Amino acid sequence: MDIESIKDPSAIKSLSKQELEYVASDIRSFLIEKLSVTGGHLGPNLGVVELTLALHYCFDSPKDKLIWDVGHQAYVHKILTGRANQFDALRQYKGLCGFPKRDESEHDVWETGHSSTSLSAAMGMATARDIKGTDDNVIAIIGDGALTGGMALEALNHIGHEQKDLIVILNDNEMSIAPNVGALHNVLAKLRTAGKYQKAKEELEMLIKKIPAFGGKLASTAERVKDSLKYLLVSGVFFEEMGFTYLGPVDGHDLDDLMENMKYAKKTSGPVLVHVLTKKGKGYAPAENDAKGTWHGLGPYKIESGEVVKKPGPPSYSGVFSDTLKKIAADDNRIVALTAAMPGGTKLDQFAKAFPERMFDVGIAEQHATTMAGGLATQGLKPVFAVYSTFLQRGYDQVVHDVCRQNLNVVFAIDRAGLVGADGETHQGVFDIAFLRHLPNMVILMPKDENELQHMIYTAIQYDGGPIAVRYPRGNGYGIKMDEELKQIPIGKWDVLRGGSDACILTFGTMIPVAEQAAEELAAQGISVKVVNARSAKPLDDELLFDIAKQNIPILTLEEAAIQGSFGSAVLEFYHDANYHDLTIHRMGIPDRFIEHGSVSQLLEEIGLTTPSVVDKVKLMLPRKRQRA
Amino acid sequence: MDIESIKDPSAIKSLSKQELEYVASDIRSFLIEKLSVTGGHLGPNLGVVELTLALHYCFDSPKDKLIWDVGHQAYVHKILTGRANQFDALRQYKGLCGFPKRDESEHDVWETGHSSTSLSAAMGMATARDIKGTDDNVIAIIGDGALTGGMALEALNHIGHEQKDLIVILNDNEMSIAPNVGALHNVLAKLRTAGKYQKAKEELEMLIKKIPAFGGKLASTAERVKDSLKYLLVSGVFFEEMGFTYLGPVDGHDLDDLMENMKYAKKTSGPVLVHVLTKKGKGYAPAENDAKGTWHGLGPYKIESGEVVKKPGPPSYSGVFSDTLKKIAADDNRIVALTAAMPGGTKLDQFAKAFPERMFDVGIAEQHATTMAGGLATQGLKPVFAVYSTFLQRGYDQVVHDVCRQNLNVVFAIDRAGLVGADGETHQGVFDIAFLRHLPNMVILMPKDENELQHMIYTAIQYDGGPIAVRYPRGNGYGIKMDEELKQIPIGKWDVLRGGSDACILTFGTMIPVAEQAAEELAAQGISVKVVNARSAKPLDDELLFDIAKQNIPILTLEEAAIQGSFGSAVLEFYHDANYHDLTIHRMGIPDRFIEHGSVSQLLEEIGLTTPSVVDKVKLMLPRKRQRA
Repeated sequence: MDIESIKDPSAIKSLSKQELEYVASDIRSFLIEKLSVTGGHLGPNLGVVELTLALHYCFDSPKDKLIWDVGHQAYVHKILTGRANQFDALRQYKGLCGFPKRDESEHDVWETGHSSTSLSAAMGMATARDIKGTDDNVIAIIGDGALTGGMALEALNHIGHEQKDLIVILNDNEMSIAPNVGALHNVLAKLRTAGKYQKAKEELEMLIKKIPAFGGKLASTAERVKDSLKYLLVSGVFFEEMGFTYLGPVDGHDLDDLMENMKYAKKTSGPVLVHVLTKKGKGYAPAENDAKGTWHGLGPYKIESGEVVKKPGPPSYSGVFSDTLKKIAADDNRIVALTAAMPGGTKLDQFAKAFPERMFDVGIAEQHATTMAGGLATQGLKPVFAVYSTFLQRGYDQVVHDVCRQNLNVVFAIDRAGLVGADGETHQGVFDIAFLRHLPNMVILMPKDENELQHMIYTAIQYDGGPIAVRYPRGNGYGIKMDEELKQIPIGKWDVLRGGSDACILTFGTMIPVAEQAAEELAAQGISVKVVNARSAKPLDDELLFDIAKQNIPILTLEEAAIQGSFGSAVLEFYHDANYHDLTIHRMGIPDRFIEHGSVSQLLEEIGLTTPSVVDKVKLMLPRKRQRA
Repeated sequence: MDIESIKDPSAIKSLSKQELEYVASDIRSFLIEKLSVTGGHLGPNLGVVELTLALHYCFDSPKDKLIWDVGHQAYVHKILTGRANQFDALRQYKGLCGFPKRDESEHDVWETGHSSTSLSAAMGMATARDIKGTDDNVIAIIGDGALTGGMALEALNHIGHEQKDLIVILNDNEMSIAPNVGALHNVLAKLRTAGKYQKAKEELEMLIKKIPAFGGKLASTAERVKDSLKYLLVSGVFFEEMGFTYLGPVDGHDLDDLMENMKYAKKTSGPVLVHVLTKKGKGYAPAENDAKGTWHGLGPYKIESGEVVKKPGPPSYSGVFSDTLKKIAADDNRIVALTAAMPGGTKLDQFAKAFPERMFDVGIAEQHATTMAGGLATQGLKPVFAVYSTFLQRGYDQVVHDVCRQNLNVVFAIDRAGLVGADGETHQGVFDIAFLRHLPNMVILMPKDENELQHMIYTAIQYDGGPIAVRYPRGNGYGIKMDEELKQIPIGKWDVLRGGSDACILTFGTMIPVAEQAAEELAAQGISVKVVNARSAKPLDDELLFDIAKQNIPILTLEEAAIQGSFGSAVLEFYHDANYHDLTIHRMGIPDRFIEHGSVSQLLEEIGLTTPSVVDKVKLMLPRKRQRA
């Protein structure tokens, strides 16, 4: 079948099973080919080809609502809903979004990017249906990894209680982004082994024999466990306990099995969970045999060899972070690292190799990770929670209530701070300064390069005054020379990178090269601009700010962060609190809207965080006579 | 026993069971008497008298760590750790905190106030213990209600996976704040009925007979359910599934039963869950017979009659909110109300009486509530999530990622905005403007009185531009006349309450009377102050702000909210963005620290949000010659 000719799901509704299998094969070839050029989430999508076909075959989208948790596995859904011809621009500026997008298609009824939201959305839609009295089906497709996120469990609990008619497809591929973590995983593993019941039973009975017998008045359970384990093995007791009808396990690559169960799920009243076993990367050997998660989401690759096209480059910020932590941890056994299912992305997998007993992957559970870090800190350890800026949003209350309020020595290594590019608006790390800055006791640092990053990580570990965040961008450093010796950077002391007498730019992190180049260009026009590496967004460098005020020159704050409430606002607050009411201060940052996908440079261009814009802004800020100069 | 003579837990270690029972009785009398004067969380504490005695008897605090989830049930713990003599000042300014407080005692190892954090903290402490190689016991005491919070489930999952040595005491009183919600509750209910196994079994088998038989290749479960249900009935299968050793149910008012199980839990390796059944309000009839949650936390009462001392007063803001919603919902069937376990506190229980099918109590699950509201909104309904300011912190990511990003018409009725008083620092609602203002698409309103509140609720319901928050304080309105007809308030249009030519105060909500009184006093001194009800913190009233700038008078922003990043900062941002660089603008708000408990007026006094401070500030802002005037 010509995949690009599919206009909507009706194209597959009348196909035979044999024909659908051909379509599945064609979709796989299409994805492997297209993504070899654009990059994208290949593994997850190859895993759900039959599942997505079966869903669109058995249900009537958009009347029936398909909600894709996390959303990066919606490529097949995009193909079946008429968007195959847009895959050349997948995840590119103004091109097809890598996640469901309501603007793109009426078949995208809910947007995702962060994990574990689909069940709550489904519950909302099913409730709305019942209030309105319509009869659409609501289907959430959620991975086993996403199920460890607390909000998914909150929703399961509520759905089970309300006994809503809705269908949860549990897409169980035994590996979310990294191999799964947690007891829930073990529950799923038991279900998976149902076919191997006898062997498992024997092994378990061996284990049970080792449990000491309970006695007396104690409410013992060993005997009961022995009896009930077999039921756990062959039924979905866990989900049934939560009030769901459990169907499965279903072979996620067998269209008959899938469709039969979906039809049954549709007929069943109350909440149904269909447990579908899929294989990530199915049908493409390099992705299928991937144990590390490389093929989860990646850039371009060579189809024949499965070789990932990698441009050699300087070390990544994440890598420098992890290496530095490893270095410090060798002499400092207080250090404990935490990740919420991102050991690869944060590069903590490298740290874990050296210190497996001091590294905890808690699953997709930023709330738990944040508070667990707090618990570790109360006992004198130095927990370091490495987390993407956008995902720390989910731990906000725990940062406020547990860490900042108790003023605990937790280090937040905030990765992917600033614009992230192809992942787009669900993943941009632009709010963290604004949501952390107003919290008492919090310190926020950002380095200008990978060398400063290593010193900041060291500084954060040595700091004993409470919580401290070091934020750094996605991607690679500049390849500059790394100091051999780690040193402490004084907190609340900024660095004047360049002197100047006509204007001053206060900036940090990724915007420093932009500011420096602007200063260079302005110098050529006879305008002398001071550039300051304002490396702590909190606390500010009061002394330096007073000095600048005395110069009485216009001040520009420049940051790759939400313009409202972030660093620039802090500078305004400082000067007005200090009775400087006549300084010309302008702020540049991310405007008050969500920023879509594209390369970071395209996005910066779009929102005007570029050297020419800074040059223009500085010139506009100068007093009239200087402007004319 | 003289309760006030207890200096530490050693006082009870050598007592006989009989003597301990006398102590339990004395503690109950003590609590009933003391709280009749101060108010406080009577019900929860009467329920845990024996449990707390058993814990301190069997474990060695502070070496062994007792972590009290939510924390309002730690009064008995406070008594046993030498703080009985401070109960006269319970929850009062500079007095004993109503929650665990590390500054108060070495026995308070972790501070709580928000729910569901204890398991993560315990996991952190147990991990630290294992890394340090010490041998202390870590015990989290968590209620059945708190278990519905996603982060508690994240932690259970991780603890089960890691098989950490720690003890979870599940304090199951069948009612958290309001009667529990959710499937988890049903699981617990099953465990509770273990003693009535036969009867339950018969009923369930009747039910099972009604389930249609599954057939063919379908992965059917009906038969298995039939076989395994009895095991669910008599064992803690749910928790065992999560990797815990389950002990229970234990009679939470039987010291022998409690101690025997705790000793056993101590000896057992790996995570243990002790399921303890307690009765809220135990030993005091009015509290024991409370079905509505009145005795959960309350003000002074008469001991003999159990009559709650209520000062007659104007309607509460929460009540006005609920009544208004009810009024609008009568004609507008798009309205759906949501609460996260606070039907009483938010007064949505009143709404629920009129519209039971359009009201959802989702349990302690703010994340799920926020996103479910989003799901409802996609289907054209008007979800209204009534939530305390401090608890909305837990839904921050969902507000960002699901609601604001998709620009969905969700109404946030933010109750308890501003200082809340006796509950103290864990509950102050001072961050919401700062954590919402930087989010694209968000609108934030606050009324000056209960009459404006009703119009704002109406306005929010009519608004179709995306998310909108109406925030209102704890407590009662002013008793002013309520308009009969609801009307829309133009969003982004402020209200000049008083003209003035020397200075301007921009303020809203609870600070309006303070500003008006200050203006009055300043008028008496010949200083003419304009007072503006800046009722939308976002968007600002650009037109009015330009007008004020033209007056070229000093501007004071005044708000009962975190000073950093809130309304005052928005005003600074506005003027600098608009090229007004020479305006004298000062900000008054909550300083950059956590604010402890006390009456709201004492706290406002402490932080200087009072009429005299405003008078002083305005005078300082005036140009020199005016100041001398």
